[in-house]
Amino acid sequence: MIQTDICIVGAGPVGLFAVFETGLLEMRCHLIDALPQVGGQLSELYPQKPIYDIPGHPSVLAGDLIRNLEAQIAPFKPTFTLGERVEQLLPQADGRFRLETNRGTVVEAKAVVIAGGLGSFEPRKPALEGLEAFEQKGVEYMVRDPEVYRGKRVVIAGGGDSALDWAMYLSELAAELHLIHRRDEFRGAPDSGKKVFDLAEAGKLHLHLSAQLVRLEGGDELERVVITDRNKEEVAIEADALIPLFGLSPKLGPIADWGLDLDKRQIKVDVETFETSLPGVYAIGDINTYPGKLKLILCGFHEAAMMAHSVVKRVRPDRKSTTMKYTTVTGISGF
Amino acid sequence: MIQTDICIVGAGPVGLFAVFETGLLEMRCHLIDALPQVGGQLSELYPQKPIYDIPGHPSVLAGDLIRNLEAQIAPFKPTFTLGERVEQLLPQADGRFRLETNRGTVVEAKAVVIAGGLGSFEPRKPALEGLEAFEQKGVEYMVRDPEVYRGKRVVIAGGGDSALDWAMYLSELAAELHLIHRRDEFRGAPDSGKKVFDLAEAGKLHLHLSAQLVRLEGGDELERVVITDRNKEEVAIEADALIPLFGLSPKLGPIADWGLDLDKRQIKVDVETFETSLPGVYAIGDINTYPGKLKLILCGFHEAAMMAHSVVKRVRPDRKSTTMKYTTVTGISGF
Repeated sequence: MIQTDICIVGAGPVGLFAVFETGLLEMRCHLIDALPQVGGQLSELYPQKPIYDIPGHPSVLAGDLIRNLEAQIAPFKPTFTLGERVEQLLPQADGRFRLETNRGTVVEAKAVVIAGGLGSFEPRKPALEGLEAFEQKGVEYMVRDPEVYRGKRVVIAGGGDSALDWAMYLSELAAELHLIHRRDEFRGAPDSGKKVFDLAEAGKLHLHLSAQLVRLEGGDELERVVITDRNKEEVAIEADALIPLFGLSPKLGPIADWGLDLDKRQIKVDVETFETSLPGVYAIGDINTYPGKLKLILCGFHEAAMMAHSVVKRVRPDRKSTTMKYTTVTGISGF
Repeated sequence: MIQTDICIVGAGPVGLFAVFETGLLEMRCHLIDALPQVGGQLSELYPQKPIYDIPGHPSVLAGDLIRNLEAQIAPFKPTFTLGERVEQLLPQADGRFRLETNRGTVVEAKAVVIAGGLGSFEPRKPALEGLEAFEQKGVEYMVRDPEVYRGKRVVIAGGGDSALDWAMYLSELAAELHLIHRRDEFRGAPDSGKKVFDLAEAGKLHLHLSAQLVRLEGGDELERVVITDRNKEEVAIEADALIPLFGLSPKLGPIADWGLDLDKRQIKVDVETFETSLPGVYAIGDINTYPGKLKLILCGFHEAAMMAHSVVKRVRPDRKSTTMKYTTVTGISGF
């Protein structure tokens, strides 16, 4: 079991900076993130893209911002559990909290800071009855290993870049490739759309436009994808695999079951302390909400500072001064 | 007369960053600052000192942070009036504001953002009756040009670094140098204190410890400084100059007379909009107060973003979207 002052759920930019602000007040942090590396969306989705609205950085690559934050918090020696998702948050009789991950890691902390960003990203699923019965039995929401589909009859659904890119790629491997899209135009890059039309004309894939998924048929495994064509007539496609690629949707995940007051999918916080409805549990960054809330990284940084000045009273009730000194005067004292 | 969307009073780091956040929503800014350059305290008091608590900067020299902010706001072409102090803030019948400086510059704006930091720095004065009658007639609160004191009889009062440093320096120029301090130990650097004691032993200056200023005497000009010594007995020192060096104290200055709700010397603001009690006038950074307020630069940056999302409704009521887009997606559009 890992013992710490503060367990931070989420190691994106705001979770990382919370280590700095709490570290200035001599509190230790352990961070848990479902992703295999720190940085949240910035590392996972756009490490090579510039950000322009971090104060004092006219332009900074998302990946560089994360590296700078890692250097900034290094004096406070945070510890990490990466690639695991916190499933349970259990308040203990002595006022502490016990957190358990999906892989059985247990952390005990005096306070919890949820910096979970937009939550975990989960695939948007089509509204098809009995869909879940075929998951991992032919239905997948992302292509992990394209070789799995070599020689198979594959149906892809969707009209964005992901659907177009995989349709092009798998049309070379699959025995038969169908692309189903509910409109006549694609949302993805025009160039990709053109290539897909060319492949369809060349007979390399079967294009079904203004079409809809209707139902799935099969026994233990998926055998058939039934769609309606542009004339609303049913067409049954013999298929080994269906890959709906309708994008990723952020989900709160297990956090939704921790008994915190929510507003839509955000955690409500006090605007002075950034504490949630559960005393000792704080929420900062994109995952929280309060009147006027802006989902900006810089606002999450501010919230981290405000939170630190509140949580110190719980974690270090003996501490005389909880006022932040100007670091210009005092410097940084690591531990 | 200068016409603008927003007049920002104070060109420190938070005032500068407010140009960026309002610029993203297509509002133009004019900034006024009493100092001759932008950057506030960071440029004036400690440009060469490192700051450690700006997120994403493990360490940044105060002067470099200001230069980065200047580069960051350049696309929005802010205009400046420097070296002038805003004296008057006059709400107009049409909802606009007229601002007048001590040098007669007039700015008319749709909204005003006060980012005045700790206010203007003014010397702490001793509580002596009739003190002001001798100001500029022997009494000065800072040493502008030490040569003025060559061959003069000078009394310095104070026990901090400034008093010690100038006592050492002026003991070489002055005909006679007295240092008055109310305690037996100095507050300044121990090494400086030791040098001052050595100078006193060598007869280069007259040290009066556990002593108090009592009154000033003279005609048109200062002639005599009367003190009490450690036995509470009066001693009259013939003197051409008295330099009380009791430190600088931040003052709100004319802002105190603009009819805004204050709490001590800070301007009260709404925590969602950062608007003051006077609609259309906002306050951000160290000059404002709200429950839990932290005087950190990064909190001022957050307040600038929140303010921008409120002020846009007044400045651009026709604008459809006031939501900030992620700059990573949209980039920065200057004007």
